Amino acid sequence: MDVSYDPRTGERQGGVAHTTSAMVEAILNRATTAAYELAATAPKVRKIWLTATSDALLAHEEELAQLGNEETGLGLPRLRSEIAGSARSILFYASVAVEGSYLGASTDLINESIALSRWNIPVGPIAVFGASNFPFGFGVFGHDVASALAAGCPVIAKAHPAHPRLSARLSVIARSALLAAGAPEGTYDLVTGFDAGLHLVDSPAIATVAFTGSQRGGMALLARAAPRGVPVFAEMGTVNPAFVTAAAAAADTAAIAAGFVASFTLGAGQFCTKPGLIFAPAGAGMFDAVAARVAEVPPAPLLTAGIAASFATGIAELAVAAESTSRSTIPVGDGYFVAAQVFRVALADLRPGSRLLEECFGPVALVCEYIDAAAALSTLVRLQGSLAASVFTGGPTDPETRAVVERLLPNVGRVALNAWPTGVINTWSQQHGGPWPATSRLDATSVGAGALARFVRPVSLQNAAPETLPVFLSADNPWQIPRRIDGALIPPAHQF
Amino acid sequence: MDVSYDPRTGERQGGVAHTTSAMVEAILNRATTAAYELAATAPKVRKIWLTATSDALLAHEEELAQLGNEETGLGLPRLRSEIAGSARSILFYASVAVEGSYLGASTDLINESIALSRWNIPVGPIAVFGASNFPFGFGVFGHDVASALAAGCPVIAKAHPAHPRLSARLSVIARSALLAAGAPEGTYDLVTGFDAGLHLVDSPAIATVAFTGSQRGGMALLARAAPRGVPVFAEMGTVNPAFVTAAAAAADTAAIAAGFVASFTLGAGQFCTKPGLIFAPAGAGMFDAVAARVAEVPPAPLLTAGIAASFATGIAELAVAAESTSRSTIPVGDGYFVAAQVFRVALADLRPGSRLLEECFGPVALVCEYIDAAAALSTLVRLQGSLAASVFTGGPTDPETRAVVERLLPNVGRVALNAWPTGVINTWSQQHGGPWPATSRLDATSVGAGALARFVRPVSLQNAAPETLPVFLSADNPWQIPRRIDGALIPPAHQF
Repeated sequence: MDVSYDPRTGERQGGVAHTTSAMVEAILNRATTAAYELAATAPKVRKIWLTATSDALLAHEEELAQLGNEETGLGLPRLRSEIAGSARSILFYASVAVEGSYLGASTDLINESIALSRWNIPVGPIAVFGASNFPFGFGVFGHDVASALAAGCPVIAKAHPAHPRLSARLSVIARSALLAAGAPEGTYDLVTGFDAGLHLVDSPAIATVAFTGSQRGGMALLARAAPRGVPVFAEMGTVNPAFVTAAAAAADTAAIAAGFVASFTLGAGQFCTKPGLIFAPAGAGMFDAVAARVAEVPPAPLLTAGIAASFATGIAELAVAAESTSRSTIPVGDGYFVAAQVFRVALADLRPGSRLLEECFGPVALVCEYIDAAAALSTLVRLQGSLAASVFTGGPTDPETRAVVERLLPNVGRVALNAWPTGVINTWSQQHGGPWPATSRLDATSVGAGALARFVRPVSLQNAAPETLPVFLSADNPWQIPRRIDGALIPPAHQF
Repeated sequence: MDVSYDPRTGERQGGVAHTTSAMVEAILNRATTAAYELAATAPKVRKIWLTATSDALLAHEEELAQLGNEETGLGLPRLRSEIAGSARSILFYASVAVEGSYLGASTDLINESIALSRWNIPVGPIAVFGASNFPFGFGVFGHDVASALAAGCPVIAKAHPAHPRLSARLSVIARSALLAAGAPEGTYDLVTGFDAGLHLVDSPAIATVAFTGSQRGGMALLARAAPRGVPVFAEMGTVNPAFVTAAAAAADTAAIAAGFVASFTLGAGQFCTKPGLIFAPAGAGMFDAVAARVAEVPPAPLLTAGIAASFATGIAELAVAAESTSRSTIPVGDGYFVAAQVFRVALADLRPGSRLLEECFGPVALVCEYIDAAAALSTLVRLQGSLAASVFTGGPTDPETRAVVERLLPNVGRVALNAWPTGVINTWSQQHGGPWPATSRLDATSVGAGALARFVRPVSLQNAAPETLPVFLSADNPWQIPRRIDGALIPPAHQF
């Protein structure tokens, strides 16, 4: 049984039975059957299914937010907003599928005797291991699940042990909505329990694994899947750097400090896009300004006893490696409540292999006051891969901007200018991913239109008669999608 | 030293010294520097460099073909044709880069305060481990190298021990042409020797590895690179199935048999697209027709003593698992010459784990005469991943066509209708890849326009001023590339 605990008290509050091996096998079998059916559906049909699911989430918003709050302690306003965002994202992924670029449709007439067509097919059933920190956005019906369904793949989600009751209820709501809207049995299912999760990874029926969570969890999945060659898209731990230029610090260090503290303590510091390390010019008083703000941050509960224990260990390790520290002065309550904290670190100590360059999940961050901007930039190049980074500049004319962005880009997925990385908009131009060890696949994104690409692969068909090609490659372009004809990219309105 | 042997005699004919560790380190350092320079060049500049290399290959065609023939025994006509194809491919990859879709340029104006742009950046220095069987197409300046350079990544190729002298000479010609055309030092280099290859894989300077070769070699590279999270695009062994429908067999079994033998013995059966297993309806006499053709196939030398030994082992293993066999009646000469051979296998013996379903590199193939077409189709679904497959049909109206293609597609990269898979055209719609274990990355292709995608990754920049964005995202679209603006895909002629 996955036991449920209230993070605000540490008290047990029921649980959910593990899925039996026989039941996992039955779920895998129906996903295998559904894979053929989904691959044959048009995106606009899957849009109907997904729209029904989005509507169902909103219809159950209050119930889901309450249940989520009992298990995560993240607070009702944040959870309501996360549900609303998730409902919008589901619609977005459906619209991306309908737009049709994800199909990569292409035809070349090489010569009189050779024609070649290429397009993307769904890879098959996907196993999704969601995250503890976003029970809706990256949970059992979040970005990974919705983008996989939009791309035409059945999904089997594994319940997160941090919120088993919410996972169970959310999956029932989503599954019912999908089936009622016409999706075949096997389109979406949930399993609960560690062994059930391993069963998925080991099954030849699973084509791809998507995971959001810790480095340790991601690495274990990667090792488990490697001998079968199963792709694992793991989003793991990351220290997201922020850089403040001299001009920005001169303009308003206090405002940047306030924004930094608000960003790294958001959701009790349990965002994968949390800014974990800020570089600011010495003499501007950034550490003191941050420390003053941190002093006033109310304690917040971490998600689980395990995360609280890891946070305590991390704080102790950082204390050894850092120069000094400061923490919230507000008394910490029961359960998994912890105090926000900031460390001052020396530029010279930010060396590869240092604990300072590894994520500490929770409301903690580092401040590095640099004397030499060039030395700080050199350090940026040596940082390990991150999901996101922020640069605070004195505006478009700040001469440092371009160099800082150029140093950061090779190590990150997204750079935000004069903005904190903790907001992740779901749109065509979003990149939520990054180089190792932030993710296992530096070419992938788990938010944004590109999220569907993880769940399809290209195939070519040579010398096919029109009736053997997929319908979206026929002359009249019935789905009105962008296609490439003899090398020329042609949007639907201008076809033929 | 990598010693060179003549496959036609087995005689030693010189060799090439291994690259020292200090020299590999120097090469890695200059590739790291060149990576920044290449990332800042426009595709049309790299097109100039690549065109010079293509011209240089053609200018040295006869010298290179002679040298290649001494080390591979593949014959001058085939090698001349491979050089010409390689020269064309280099130009094609350059044109794909100039077209600009590979940049994935996209901008969204979310609202008054948020703008988000996304595009692809080159990942950095690439290590290319080429194949023995295509010294030009997949050698030290073949598809992998040219597509990586086109995408803006420096390349360090490792010489193949089957043709060390050709690798050395070819790399000098290509490198000189690149540098003379203006490419920076570090754009392209060669290393020789097993340890030098490991040095590349272990170096933090290498961003991605591309490999073409055996299953064992590919798996070793994958295991070596995994702890660092370095992407490895390995194209490995594959049994490419062919299926003959009842109508096709009735129309002309003799012609299909002749084509099959010509295809599986091409280049002494050392094509990664070799059709290794053909399914034909019982009663059409396919095995006998193939055996009659095989009897007349002249012996050909395999590339190396190692490949010849593996072929002998493979033939012995297949003989145990197959029902009967037949081979060329023409006497086999010295060196690494072997006889073409065909095995008759039972449908029931094509079970997962059977030796019959694993590649045997060289001029050998299996014939399976099926009684029940439905049972044969079920077997197709159980085959492991392959690069390519062929289907021979009675024409567009053959009722079996669609079902066979649908059964094959989930397991292969490309299906050719009424054509053999051994020709691989380099064009926009080509897919040369396939599910595990044919390759390590089922989403990738090593031939065709999609080949560049292996060497770039997306980044997002949030709230950037125009001067901080790459030039190709500026309002006037100076490179005239397709871009996505607020979700709409816009080809260059219709921009703004």
